[in-house]
Order: sequence, then structure tokens, then C-alpha cells
Amino acid sequence: MTTSAAPSTSKATPKPSPVYAKTELDVWTLMNQVAASVGAVNLGQGYMSFPPKEFIKHAAQEALNENTHNQYAPPRGRPGLLGQLATRFTGRFGRPIDANKEVSVHAGANEALLSVFTAFLEHGKDQEVILMEPAFDQYTPNVIMAGGKPVYVPLRVTSDKDPRENVISSDDWKLDLAEFEAAITEKTRIVVLNTPHNPVGKVFSREELTQIGAIAEKHNLLIVADEVYEHLTYGVEHVSIATLPGMWERTVTVGSAGKLFGVTGWRVGWAVGPEKFISATLSAHTRIVFTSNTPLQEGVASAFRQAPEHDFFEVQRSEYETRRNRLMQVFDDIGLPYVVPNGAYYLLVNAAKLKIPRDFEFPDFIVERGENFKLVYFFIKYFGVSGIPPTEFYSEPHKELANDYVRFAFCKTDEGLEEAAVCLQKIKKYLKETSD
Amino acid sequence: MTTSAAPSTSKATPKPSPVYAKTELDVWTLMNQVAASVGAVNLGQGYMSFPPKEFIKHAAQEALNENTHNQYAPPRGRPGLLGQLATRFTGRFGRPIDANKEVSVHAGANEALLSVFTAFLEHGKDQEVILMEPAFDQYTPNVIMAGGKPVYVPLRVTSDKDPRENVISSDDWKLDLAEFEAAITEKTRIVVLNTPHNPVGKVFSREELTQIGAIAEKHNLLIVADEVYEHLTYGVEHVSIATLPGMWERTVTVGSAGKLFGVTGWRVGWAVGPEKFISATLSAHTRIVFTSNTPLQEGVASAFRQAPEHDFFEVQRSEYETRRNRLMQVFDDIGLPYVVPNGAYYLLVNAAKLKIPRDFEFPDFIVERGENFKLVYFFIKYFGVSGIPPTEFYSEPHKELANDYVRFAFCKTDEGLEEAAVCLQKIKKYLKETSD
Repeated sequence: MTTSAAPSTSKATPKPSPVYAKTELDVWTLMNQVAASVGAVNLGQGYMSFPPKEFIKHAAQEALNENTHNQYAPPRGRPGLLGQLATRFTGRFGRPIDANKEVSVHAGANEALLSVFTAFLEHGKDQEVILMEPAFDQYTPNVIMAGGKPVYVPLRVTSDKDPRENVISSDDWKLDLAEFEAAITEKTRIVVLNTPHNPVGKVFSREELTQIGAIAEKHNLLIVADEVYEHLTYGVEHVSIATLPGMWERTVTVGSAGKLFGVTGWRVGWAVGPEKFISATLSAHTRIVFTSNTPLQEGVASAFRQAPEHDFFEVQRSEYETRRNRLMQVFDDIGLPYVVPNGAYYLLVNAAKLKIPRDFEFPDFIVERGENFKLVYFFIKYFGVSGIPPTEFYSEPHKELANDYVRFAFCKTDEGLEEAAVCLQKIKKYLKETSD
Repeated sequence: MTTSAAPSTSKATPKPSPVYAKTELDVWTLMNQVAASVGAVNLGQGYMSFPPKEFIKHAAQEALNENTHNQYAPPRGRPGLLGQLATRFTGRFGRPIDANKEVSVHAGANEALLSVFTAFLEHGKDQEVILMEPAFDQYTPNVIMAGGKPVYVPLRVTSDKDPRENVISSDDWKLDLAEFEAAITEKTRIVVLNTPHNPVGKVFSREELTQIGAIAEKHNLLIVADEVYEHLTYGVEHVSIATLPGMWERTVTVGSAGKLFGVTGWRVGWAVGPEKFISATLSAHTRIVFTSNTPLQEGVASAFRQAPEHDFFEVQRSEYETRRNRLMQVFDDIGLPYVVPNGAYYLLVNAAKLKIPRDFEFPDFIVERGENFKLVYFFIKYFGVSGIPPTEFYSEPHKELANDYVRFAFCKTDEGLEEAAVCLQKIKKYLKETSD
């Protein structure tokens, strides 16, 4: 009996599914850990390093005083928040939105997206979902979890200028309509449209949306419009595709209180669309989390009510534009080009000109994740400023499109941005010409 | 061109998946709506009608003052809460629990359960999960969503006494071990064990858990221990199956701050288990909701820290025991028997003796959901007291086992219970003998 020495450890124990048994960290946790290990200025993950406005914080604190605000909300959401959202989208969409039929509240926009995918996709049917790359890193696992197959169409840089040498516009990143339509098959069910776009900062124009919508209509696709940055545009108009003729009938629009009010930790998001879409989305949501947290839903409802008296959205937009301009100025000064964001709060910097010293050493957990992770790791360790590697927003065949880029978030304090500016001065010594 | 009159409505629009296109309401929303429509005393859904203790509310309000407590938490959870949970379970489980490896925080215990199922089951493999009936209504859709197939084994009433005529104990509801083992096949991966049990109030004994554990070990099953009512037992000991010899290695234990601190709307839950299980559960969680809300996680961490100085858990347990005893007394007085709950906060009342007037009319949306819904509907409309139909906790073939029962929740104010007592007096006129 050779096994008798350790009977309990020799027994079989249950094994997780291979999909989830992998121990690879998500990019956010990994990069936050690296940044924290060297005390880097964190321009990585897109959370605000400044506090929420007092009235927003107080709205949640006051909500906690009511007992009913500490107990289960209806799965669809608290009536007060549903009412505020219906009012907001009635205005934005130019059509009456029914709070009890055409809106649902979610545990963050992420869970809203998973709920929509779950509501519209079936396992075992190989249904396809078109994702435009770079694509927010949660789309792919969320589509797969719901039973779908992601199909990737990269945005293409159309500028005449070399983006390794020149500042270009986020408008220069275009969806090639022929490439988009060629990716559609009989199994395609959904196209995900993110505008303003993370991480490019592109705000899709009315004309682009009209063209995308026409193709979606031709192939009877559901449009999932991820508009969590709808409130942050710089000199351009944000157009919701749901407002274009015939598009309401095929669109679910997703939004986020965390982004809208600068409280990413509150986990309150929403979905808006035709009753039959939201009804199915709500069914999925009810089984995924049952309901979202009540006190912060009530806090968001109250924040919506108070926003006008504080000119909140106007002031916030202007503050973000100032931060954007400051960070662009930092890179202008250093001499690294970037993509001018027309929306959201990210700056894609092209670091092709950066020459990493040959003797710089990378740990294995970075090397195994590719060249772009090495570039960002170098920024963190050498300059003390963290970003996010945008290859994480690409499928394997397209990762090379992002190898030169680092995504920096500018939802950060003035002090943080100035500190980053000082740290990044060191870059100047490491710039090379890219004509080699 | 006959279609030209209404071109936009005649176009095809996307269709939700048949699974989620159904518009059937979850039992909680449905019964809450019926109760509200007649202003009934709501002893239905298990939320507290009394306010949380002041120190708990204040803990969350204070958490909101810190900016970092308003932004994303790490997917695993805020370090402060992880630390509190590790300390708590180190004490309860009698083994050192690693806060950074063996615990994860979730968007409610519901999302913890979905994360575990997702981490351990694969779509397309027909893997089976044993659920003991009555089974909390979210288990079934959560197992199916994760790709598994629920297999139901009902608890059997073993009392010599007729439960239609006599008060019986929740101990009289037993898992038939032979029936349990017969339900296990080569495809079985998980058994879900809920103790204290909702809605029966059964607290599984050490002996029962040892027997269930031995069968789980023999067939190498994962045990998912839903212990959200661990803090509410009346005169009996709560045993966590993870503390029995050899069981830690095959168990994930799930808990809930909503239940533990009387704040069901906060949506903070957790999972505790061996590192490789929690790692996979955390991977699933990260993709389902990314992270749980931060301010209320911090509120829970602070509530844990302050609980001892308030004798919180002892006082709370005693208050619930008083509520339980009062509700049992109400039914003793009326003459309707019930199942004495040894744990949790539900009373299963056997209403077989109740004679519903022949001319009482039921709406179609109740009739189509069966006899037990009719019984509960009658309680709401005729007596003004709402409960939950426990057939919703049974699979179709076993629903008849619950037809005579109504579940009443006693996590309610003294005033609410007294009001219910007055309303329920009317029952006396409608009692018949069951020997017919």
C-alpha cells in the first residue's frame, strides 16, 4: 500500500473548468500591482484620482438614512433612478422613454453588457458578434460567456501622416465599411459600437453611424451601443446611434453612473432600448445578480436631480478638456506623438521613437504577454508612470497594430498629471529616429 | 408594393434568445406587486422591514468620505474587507485563511454562486449539479447559465405526525442518502448544500453533513455550501461542512453581508475555499461584474470591526428568535400547523386545513402558475398578508410536495408581525378538517 502515507492528499479533488482554471491576471489588476510596487503615478486604469463632487457623495450618504434604501431594489431598478433615466433619455433620444419598460438598471455597465449578450445569444449555435478593435477587454469574455463567438474588425488608421512621427486625430481611425460587411455572416447577431471610444477617443460621426446602421439593418443585427463616455466630448457632437432613423428598433444603449458621476466604484449602470429587448435583458440580469445595490442607485437618482443646479455636466466636461489638453501638451513637449481624443479620457501615445536600453531586464510574467506589455512595463519602472498596454484590446492576429502604443488615462488630479509630466521628462534621452 | 404603407415596422428586427424572451416575472417581483396592490403586510420576500443598526449605516456613510472608496475595488475585493473575512473564517473554520488567496468578494451571494458554477461547469458537456428541494429559486437558472444540468433530490418529511395537522420540526425534513447517491452519475460535478436552509429552516447536523460529505468524497463532487444564514440558529449548532475532516479540500462556502448585517440591498457577498477554487471563481467573477461596489464593501469591513463592541451578532440572533417565536405563536393560536425553523428567518406554514371559498376568483396570471400560487394569492387578497409560494423552489415533478405550504418571512418589525397577527385571525373561519 504505497499510498497509505498521505491518504488525504492523494484523494481526487474537484477541478475548475479549464477556461477559468488559468491564473492569468486581468490587465487592470496586473498593471495596478506593478504600478503600486514602484509607487508610480497611476495613469493606467480609468478611475478618478480626484474625489467626487460633494453633492454626489452626500446624495449617497443621505440615501443610506432610509431603511428601504438598504434593502433589495426591484431587479429592474429603484423607481427614482428609473424615472431619472427615462427623463434623461427622453431628452437625449427625442422620444418618450418609458421608465417601466424601456430602461433597466445594472451592476455597472459591464453587467449591463453581459446581460444584453446573454439575452440575445445562445450557447451551441456559434452565433457571432462583431467587435471593433481596439475593443474594451471585457467584451470578448462577456460574449463567450453568453455563448457567442467574437469576430474582430480593426479600426484602420487612414492618416497620410506617419503616426510614429506625427500627432494624428482620433477621426483618422476609421471603420472600413467593406471590411465590416465582409466580416458579417449568416451567424452574425450583434455589432458592438463604442462611442466615444476607449482607448482611441474617437467619437463616431453622424455619417459614420448612418453607414454602420445601414449595414446593421441590411443584415438584421442588434446594435449594442456602449456609450459610457457620452458626456465627455471635446469640440465634437456625440450622436447616439439609437436616434438615427430606424435605429431605435435595433439598438440597446448602455451607460454608466460610475463614468457619468466620477464614481467608478459604485457599480451602477443601465440599458435603454425597446421594451422587448430590455425585458429580455432584465430577465438575464435578474439571474446574473438579481438586483443592483440600492443605496448607490438612490444616490445616483439624487445626483441626477441635483446636477442642473451645479452645472455639473458642463463643468465636468470642461475640467476633462483641460486635463486632456495638459496631457497632450506634456507629450508635445517631450516629442512623442499621440492620437488626439475627441472624447472619453484616454490618450493613446505612440512610443515607437522610444529606445529601450538593451540591458533593461523584464520579468517573465511581462515577457510572456508580448512586446506591448514590455513597453508599458518600461514606462512604469523607468519613468515611474503607468499606462495600459492596448494590445490587451486586440485579438491575437491584430495585436501588432497596437505594439507602439501606450494608453494613459487623464481622469486624474492636476497634481498627478504634473507629477507625471516631471517623470516623463526623462523620456527625452531615450528617443530615437523611427526611419531606421 | 403592398408593404410600402409601413416600411419601417415591416423590417425584421433582432430577436432575443428564447430563454430570455419569456416575460414571466420572478416570484419575488410578482408577489411584491400583488402585495403592494392591496397594501398587504409583506411577509413575502426576505428583506428586513426594520432599519439597519445605526453603526452599520454610519459605517457606509463614513466610507463614502474617502475618494478611493468611491472608485473601482480590486476584483477580489477591498483589502480591508478581505482581511475581516479571513479573520472571521479563520475563527469559524479553525484553520488559517489567507485573505489574498482563499477569499473573494462578490456582488451579493447570488453572484458568488453564479461565479462558482461558472468556474466549475462547462457548456456542452451535460455536467450535473445536485440540488436539494426545496431549492432557492436562483440555483436552477444559475446552474443552467453556467452550462450545467440541475438534478433534483427532494428533502423528505420523515415525521410520524401528519404535517397537515401537526407542528413538525425542520429536523424532520431529511435528505434520503440512498436517493441522493442514486441521483449521482458520472456527469455529476457539484452538490449544493444550503444550511441553515431556506425555506425549511433546517440546520443540517454534524452527522448528516458527515454522511453527505462521505458521498461527495466518494464521487469526487464539489460541495457548494450556501451558508448565508449561518448567523441565525435557534437552539442548535451551525456546522460548516468545510470544517469536517477532508471537506475543506472540496468545498466553497458562500456568505452574504446583506443577510449578516440586515442590509439586503448592499449586494456584498463572498466565497471562501481552497486557493485553486477561489482563483477560478474570481476569474469568473471578474468577467461577470468585474468588481463589486466599493463603498459598501468598506462599510461591511467597518461593520465587522465594530460588531463586537455592540454584541451585534448575539443581539441580532436573539431578536430573530423572538420574532420566530411570535410568528409561531400566531399560527398556534389560529390552529394552522407549521415547520419549526431551527435556523434562517422563514416559517413554512401548512395550510391544508384552509378552505378557499368556491366563489373566490383568481386572475389568469396566478392560475397559470398552479395551486400553490392560488393559495398564496388568497392569503394576500383575503387576509392581507403576503407570503411566497414554495412550489417556486421545486422542479415540476416535485411541485406537489409544496402545494399545502406558504413561506412567511419573519425578518420584519414587531409592528408588522402584530399587524399580520390581527389580519390572520380571519383564517379561523376558513379552517376545515383535513381527514376528508
